[in-house]
Amino acid sequence: MISRREFLGGMAALAGQSALRGQSAIPRVDPRALRQRIETLSTYGRPVGGSFADGVSRTAYSDADVEGRRYVIGLMKGAGLEPRIDPAGNIFARRDGAVPQLAPILFGSHIDSVPHGGNFDGDLGSLSALGALEALAAGGVRTRHPLEMVVWAHEESFAFGRGLACSRIVAGDVKPADMDEVWSGMRRAEAIRKIGGNPERILDARRPRGSHHCYVELHIEQGGTLERAAIPVGVVEGIVAIDRYEAVITGVANHAGTTPIAERHDALLAAAHLTVAVRDAATRRPGRQVATVGQVEVTPNSPNVIPGRVVLSVELRDLSPQTLVAMMGDVRARAREIERTTQTTIAFKTMAQVLPAVATPEVQSAIERASASLDLRTTRLPSGAGHDAQSMAQLGPMGMIFVPSVGGVSHSPKELTNWDDCANGADVLMRTILEMDRVG
Amino acid sequence: MISRREFLGGMAALAGQSALRGQSAIPRVDPRALRQRIETLSTYGRPVGGSFADGVSRTAYSDADVEGRRYVIGLMKGAGLEPRIDPAGNIFARRDGAVPQLAPILFGSHIDSVPHGGNFDGDLGSLSALGALEALAAGGVRTRHPLEMVVWAHEESFAFGRGLACSRIVAGDVKPADMDEVWSGMRRAEAIRKIGGNPERILDARRPRGSHHCYVELHIEQGGTLERAAIPVGVVEGIVAIDRYEAVITGVANHAGTTPIAERHDALLAAAHLTVAVRDAATRRPGRQVATVGQVEVTPNSPNVIPGRVVLSVELRDLSPQTLVAMMGDVRARAREIERTTQTTIAFKTMAQVLPAVATPEVQSAIERASASLDLRTTRLPSGAGHDAQSMAQLGPMGMIFVPSVGGVSHSPKELTNWDDCANGADVLMRTILEMDRVG
Repeated sequence: MISRREFLGGMAALAGQSALRGQSAIPRVDPRALRQRIETLSTYGRPVGGSFADGVSRTAYSDADVEGRRYVIGLMKGAGLEPRIDPAGNIFARRDGAVPQLAPILFGSHIDSVPHGGNFDGDLGSLSALGALEALAAGGVRTRHPLEMVVWAHEESFAFGRGLACSRIVAGDVKPADMDEVWSGMRRAEAIRKIGGNPERILDARRPRGSHHCYVELHIEQGGTLERAAIPVGVVEGIVAIDRYEAVITGVANHAGTTPIAERHDALLAAAHLTVAVRDAATRRPGRQVATVGQVEVTPNSPNVIPGRVVLSVELRDLSPQTLVAMMGDVRARAREIERTTQTTIAFKTMAQVLPAVATPEVQSAIERASASLDLRTTRLPSGAGHDAQSMAQLGPMGMIFVPSVGGVSHSPKELTNWDDCANGADVLMRTILEMDRVG
Repeated sequence: MISRREFLGGMAALAGQSALRGQSAIPRVDPRALRQRIETLSTYGRPVGGSFADGVSRTAYSDADVEGRRYVIGLMKGAGLEPRIDPAGNIFARRDGAVPQLAPILFGSHIDSVPHGGNFDGDLGSLSALGALEALAAGGVRTRHPLEMVVWAHEESFAFGRGLACSRIVAGDVKPADMDEVWSGMRRAEAIRKIGGNPERILDARRPRGSHHCYVELHIEQGGTLERAAIPVGVVEGIVAIDRYEAVITGVANHAGTTPIAERHDALLAAAHLTVAVRDAATRRPGRQVATVGQVEVTPNSPNVIPGRVVLSVELRDLSPQTLVAMMGDVRARAREIERTTQTTIAFKTMAQVLPAVATPEVQSAIERASASLDLRTTRLPSGAGHDAQSMAQLGPMGMIFVPSVGGVSHSPKELTNWDDCANGADVLMRTILEMDRVG
């Protein structure tokens, strides 16, 4: 039997309208508690003698990480949840649904940071997940699906030279030998044990496809698109593919005084033209693809010697791998011209190729309905950064909610999201969960 | 009273014709001895187990330098000369002229090398100077002016981070405190003492203006102009002025994935445009000026971060300081545009300004007459590299003879000048001395 409320919700969802619109009974995530918890969490890994504005260094497996995790686990217990740590070190907590055989709606983020990072990247999504569970409990809202929050371990690329490490394990990308890796004098098994995981049973951290109804993550944008457009909520279309190349430019090192311009084989001049070509490959087509030369090594790198060799990085990002292929086609074509005009040779080596993770259209629509029910404008946009959501996209439907980053700054102590935007994001997360609870 | 020969010589010089043309009595520098000595000198500082083609590391004040100098001093003594070492460590030897009160004609070069350098840079000019003195003695040619050969100490820029060090002392650019400098754990006084100099009396190494009739130096071109034009002798117009700047480009470091192209303040993109602008400043005007970006430092220099800061070197060289000013004007104007289009700031700092040394027209003409008397074609060209001749230009008339460098390669074990060109250069040096002996 279906209740009147469920029936109305189903009808509204089919019509692309939120069942939540105008419902005064829907609880709100407590914005004061959210802020206070983000501020308290910021003290774990804060520079000595610093303040909130000085950011945080809570890198995965550090003492600060262990203490921050203990603080969050304490909050979860205080909310009546029973957190458990999986063999990979991820923290999960579940609230029963009305229909026990349905797969849970999974949502959360991470609390580890880059060195000298900010207080919103990960923390906002993790503590909003807890706030949403608390609000639903306080409001007596019963969902059909079980609800499950998660605080992923080791999201940032720093420890062991990788990121998304523990959500990848859950997605199945793990083998026992991985635990033998050593980074900064620490075995990976030891690191995972330090945060309460169980490296001996690491394969048990894997979850099968379909083990969740959907995964939803609230995160700061880290770019400046939302702030510039004055739109409070971003609906992530997907997480971009990344192609990374190394270009090796070979010329001839020679005396900067005795070698006439026409006789030069200047590897740095070629690198300059190639850097412009990489930029042009991004801007010459419509779309939001980006292309970056971030790293350059010059040999011999002396003011009075024409550079004989330059190695530079080329990084291309877009939702569409086809766009990346087309961009690299442009870069290679320009490289052939540059070789001729500068009398050098340019060779490309593929360093990494990361596949895109497309957000599920149903989850994107749910985020839009949830936002509309709060009279919050939305825009769709890609995520240029990687997130644990891309691991979860391998197991089932996925969506992400972005809130504005002031000045588009991230991975910096200057990282900032206004508290109103934080509160809005938490409410959109909670209502997206309710929207998704009505479908499937 | 003037001899008939002197009279004819004077007339020919006035008419721009060599008094030496067709004179079968003029001796030749022994090409076999020249080659054999260059080959023997190459063994001092040769890589262990290497051959002539492996070049030489005979850096100033090294044990190899001391041994090489001892070898050359031995050759000078064998030729009946009485070499003396001045307080700076330079080796001089004099042959009397018919008119003792005339200032000597000074000629020579150096025998120290850069690390992993070649066997012609300096060695050719030094050993040709000795060969010329020997040939004149063997041929019974008596000059009016005294003749003085010199082997300069410490010409290359390596020890103590400077070059032309000991000819500069002779030109007066020295103070006693300079001897207290320390480089690579060695005091400069100790270094100069190691090669037989007398640092306590360093000021006595100075020579006054007018202390020589003229200074002539034979050297390899180090560029590819002569070889390309198939011309065996270059008449140096002067040694170029050098202006060296540091450009500091300030942008904003940000995430290469989350920062849209339009929002970037990419310091490396600005550096790329500036590198092209520096090149354009050299090529957009007629002339032989050169411009080089040889050194680049990128911060933070990571493939996934948009560079926030780049520091690069800008080096401009030409005979005319006005050309350098005009070129830098172009670079600055382009920098203003680049700042606007890349949303960065570019600041320039002057690092060094080296004045040009113009070769004396009379010496240039003498080199041309000497070459013509040997049926050797000549072309005038600037020296893009620094030479001890520019120190000597401060004391009196100066000229330089260039011979072709194969492939324009120098400061490399691959440095090569064909033996025929070496022999021609030595003969042109000797005949230039004779031409100059006839004037003034």
